[in-house]
Amino acid sequence: MAPHPLADLTTNEIGQARDLVQAKHPRTLLSFKAITLEEPTKELMLEYLEAEHAGKSATCPNRIAYCAYYFRGTQKLLTAEVNLTTGQTQVVDHEGDGVHGNVDFAEVLEVEKAVMECPEVRAEIDKLMLPDHLEVIPEPWGFGSDGVDDLSRYFQVYMFIREKGKLDSNHYARPLAFSPIFDPTTMKLVRIQHISTGAGHDVNEQGVYKETPPNEYIPSEVQLRTDLEPLHVVQPNGPSFEITKDRVVKWQKWQIRVGFNYREGLVLRDIRYDGRPLFYRVSLSEMCVPYGDPRSPYHRKMAFDLGDVGAGMVCNNLKLGCDCLGSIAYLDGLVCDRDGHPVVKENAICIHEQDNGIGWKHTNYRTDTEGAADMIKRYILMFIFNQAGEMEYQVRATGILSTSAINEGVTVDFGTVVHPGVLAAHHQHILSLRIDPIIGSYLYGNTVVQQEAEAMPMDEYNPHGNGYRVVKTDIVTEGGHDLDWAKSRVFSVKNPHLLNPINGLPISYKLMFPPVPPLLSHPSSFNAKRAEFGDHHLYVTKYRPDELFSGGKFTNQSRGDTGIKSWIAKNEASTVDQDVVLWVQFGLNHVPRIEDFPVM
Amino acid sequence: MAPHPLADLTTNEIGQARDLVQAKHPRTLLSFKAITLEEPTKELMLEYLEAEHAGKSATCPNRIAYCAYYFRGTQKLLTAEVNLTTGQTQVVDHEGDGVHGNVDFAEVLEVEKAVMECPEVRAEIDKLMLPDHLEVIPEPWGFGSDGVDDLSRYFQVYMFIREKGKLDSNHYARPLAFSPIFDPTTMKLVRIQHISTGAGHDVNEQGVYKETPPNEYIPSEVQLRTDLEPLHVVQPNGPSFEITKDRVVKWQKWQIRVGFNYREGLVLRDIRYDGRPLFYRVSLSEMCVPYGDPRSPYHRKMAFDLGDVGAGMVCNNLKLGCDCLGSIAYLDGLVCDRDGHPVVKENAICIHEQDNGIGWKHTNYRTDTEGAADMIKRYILMFIFNQAGEMEYQVRATGILSTSAINEGVTVDFGTVVHPGVLAAHHQHILSLRIDPIIGSYLYGNTVVQQEAEAMPMDEYNPHGNGYRVVKTDIVTEGGHDLDWAKSRVFSVKNPHLLNPINGLPISYKLMFPPVPPLLSHPSSFNAKRAEFGDHHLYVTKYRPDELFSGGKFTNQSRGDTGIKSWIAKNEASTVDQDVVLWVQFGLNHVPRIEDFPVM
Repeated sequence: MAPHPLADLTTNEIGQARDLVQAKHPRTLLSFKAITLEEPTKELMLEYLEAEHAGKSATCPNRIAYCAYYFRGTQKLLTAEVNLTTGQTQVVDHEGDGVHGNVDFAEVLEVEKAVMECPEVRAEIDKLMLPDHLEVIPEPWGFGSDGVDDLSRYFQVYMFIREKGKLDSNHYARPLAFSPIFDPTTMKLVRIQHISTGAGHDVNEQGVYKETPPNEYIPSEVQLRTDLEPLHVVQPNGPSFEITKDRVVKWQKWQIRVGFNYREGLVLRDIRYDGRPLFYRVSLSEMCVPYGDPRSPYHRKMAFDLGDVGAGMVCNNLKLGCDCLGSIAYLDGLVCDRDGHPVVKENAICIHEQDNGIGWKHTNYRTDTEGAADMIKRYILMFIFNQAGEMEYQVRATGILSTSAINEGVTVDFGTVVHPGVLAAHHQHILSLRIDPIIGSYLYGNTVVQQEAEAMPMDEYNPHGNGYRVVKTDIVTEGGHDLDWAKSRVFSVKNPHLLNPINGLPISYKLMFPPVPPLLSHPSSFNAKRAEFGDHHLYVTKYRPDELFSGGKFTNQSRGDTGIKSWIAKNEASTVDQDVVLWVQFGLNHVPRIEDFPVM
Repeated sequence: MAPHPLADLTTNEIGQARDLVQAKHPRTLLSFKAITLEEPTKELMLEYLEAEHAGKSATCPNRIAYCAYYFRGTQKLLTAEVNLTTGQTQVVDHEGDGVHGNVDFAEVLEVEKAVMECPEVRAEIDKLMLPDHLEVIPEPWGFGSDGVDDLSRYFQVYMFIREKGKLDSNHYARPLAFSPIFDPTTMKLVRIQHISTGAGHDVNEQGVYKETPPNEYIPSEVQLRTDLEPLHVVQPNGPSFEITKDRVVKWQKWQIRVGFNYREGLVLRDIRYDGRPLFYRVSLSEMCVPYGDPRSPYHRKMAFDLGDVGAGMVCNNLKLGCDCLGSIAYLDGLVCDRDGHPVVKENAICIHEQDNGIGWKHTNYRTDTEGAADMIKRYILMFIFNQAGEMEYQVRATGILSTSAINEGVTVDFGTVVHPGVLAAHHQHILSLRIDPIIGSYLYGNTVVQQEAEAMPMDEYNPHGNGYRVVKTDIVTEGGHDLDWAKSRVFSVKNPHLLNPINGLPISYKLMFPPVPPLLSHPSSFNAKRAEFGDHHLYVTKYRPDELFSGGKFTNQSRGDTGIKSWIAKNEASTVDQDVVLWVQFGLNHVPRIEDFPVM
């Protein structure tokens, strides 16, 4: 049987795509960055889904693979659309400065090795005169951009100390003040950058390493609590959900098609409730983490976790079990390695039910349960569906702080000293969730509505001054919007064609999310140019194919003008009764506390 | 053994207090509204707690009972402080207009009965010409205040229709458009008020009742979902917490003294973490629910759920089991009835552990568990303590919408039609949580700090514009403050005398809470005068005894000038390195959706 048009590429399809791309470049060694499903056009798919759920037959659109790859050892990035049904392959050559593919792990490991073998780096390490029990380890980061000699693809390699041979030693407690800049194309050192350890920009050569105390978190090094009794979640009949072979999860009145790719990780498609469509596609679109430290190289430290690396690429293998309780179901994810071969991310997705306490209380009692689809890495990313028809996206940040060296006695207002000699800089996590709604029907457009509460004037209609009313405003063109708690501002998506039979209001789905500060970088900064989604809580756009990533398709050392604000400036399309897309920005401003280190 | 000075009154002590009060008024029938612990002065208690936790002996302060009561059948409200140790009783006579005690249940039942027997009401009901299967039921509400003939204590009785004899029939689906105003002192009708069923203020006599469809929620009337498999939480060794005879809960590094009273329900005292004090006293101080419907009598509809009634008075009896999973421990609460006799609120408090998913994820795995102390009514009020030293206060609203009658085809902007002929008006739930901190030591003062994040100017210190910094400002005098998401504004409480040994910063405890709109009523309205806490997210005051209730001590038909703004205006005290108290306002603005009715 042919795969569903929205199903992830199979192992065979990835192999086929790889071979077809390789055939376009005979005798050339390629470095694949991605081989993933290129979705059929939405126009075709809406027709298909309408027929599918009506139990009618529909023509299956062609299967197409999107491939991104380098000519290995060069800066030549190409992408290809491989039509697996027809065998046709269209190649695009991404000439031009600053268009770079995402990082891959093989490359990171090579850089780590090359850095440690590099004579200039070795010489720098020698100056530390480390005692026998310590060793240096490198941590390559995306280089970022600041407009200064940054057109080539580089790694900024941060250096740390750890206890020799102790792989789980917390090296973040011992950061070093020099950083090799490395070229992954040539595998050569560009230069060694010395980093300030004071409040200002002055740098000094690294001298002899002054040993600071360790700060470990591994169980063997710390006293774990022993006074916690076991707590088990037992589901004697198994879970109440069903997962079809085709990866459709059915629970209560929900139906959700689960997908996975190298970049977004979990992608939920054709989400239906009680026999009606709600969302065509929901996924995390981007997440950037800009740091507030103005000193070089930290001014370039802004990871685009999805575009630069890929949520699917880095997600934890949950084969050994995740931390969830109850009857857990796992689904694998599929990505590719540098050679274009399929790599299984085992148990990348965890699906389970959670009790959520009391669902409703008036005179009766019932059991409330939630379904959750998790994807775990340093972030815990959970879609939670409940019995009331609500979909919640819950993100938990964990892991460990990224640190730098600071001199004893120095304090700065852009970071917190969390250990002797260790600074954790303030940073933001700005996530961008892409929601492609299709409320109530595949056949009609939707409109986004802003709703505010406002006090009525005190007049003869409202003589005692208690009256307040709700004002609803259609959002008529593409653009950015912000929350306003003083007005109780919320947004909803309505289907103006389908009215509630009781009160005549259009059926709607409300969005609620907590307000976070916008990107705190200056509007003219590279950070702001690169993270175009970072300045508003909500963006509304008209659907256009290939607009999936609010920070731009290629974010690694991106230079701006490729994200959501640029699309809107180009189109300024109407959003009334249209195929609209919502982009919700949220996250956290992490002003580190000493209690956050090393266990956050 | 003598009770701990912060322990709730015992059954015997309530009886003793009642007898001592009655002895002050021989031959007078009293109606008791409250008999509860009057806490020892904080000055004495800090000394006592410091000694207690150092294992030293300390003088036990006198046990004092606070009693509020009426001369039955009159408007004469009195309060008494009964010193149970010495037997001395001090009585205060609350003369003066508009000082009323809280509602009690015996009274409500009497009013319900009297309303239904009242000839004028019977005549009104007769006009409805109800079919045999329907009957009228009354629902007495606190009268509220608007300055018009409202100095006496009244009930506003809303009237509804239900299926005859079906006690669980959802009468809120069939509201009536007339409302008796009743005097509970004389048990006499004041007048019958007719209510508008249009968008304006015009009222009509109630005619023949036009039957509308029912809208039931009881299990026998609706189709319940059958596709949910059981989910059990099993703790084979029992819970990890311990509850002492003296009602101190110990879990992980936490130690919490649990108390309960008629007004606040759950009161947590002397909350300690890892051997150090954090909070002297934490409780819900008030909750008001103003409605946005400007038409009479709804302009007076603003319940003070704690002051007018009492969270402890109305809390559900959980004797038959609550909806929580796992190893549950229950504690009773003790209140008194109208005759001053002790009434046990069985299982009013539920204590259990909850798994909270992943506590931390980096390279290791562990089980994270939370302790929760619940109190359940139409609100689910949970204090959640976690392994990271965080205390969370979680409020869930459930129950059913309060409704009114509306003509077919009429729409208003202050409410939503949720059923044919039924309007649910917009309303706010503004809760006020009182937090009395004592961070790190019983011996020192605390200071509240406002923390904001701001972009640095783009200059030679911040040449690339990514820098941002954190600015901390001590709050130096009493007053109100608001959140500001654009500045990432948060508040914390510091102990300026105890510094972290690593980074030299004062030890602090941070407050985080979601922003809600302020009270939307006009500043000159009675709503605003009565709910003095409703205009700011956070109030900071200097501790003063007898300032426990931010809306005022007597809220039933209160007329203003008795709450937190009035205290501050009187004192304008310094809050630097003082015994400070924080008042956090939060809640929700409920703009009803049709999906909220009847199951919310």
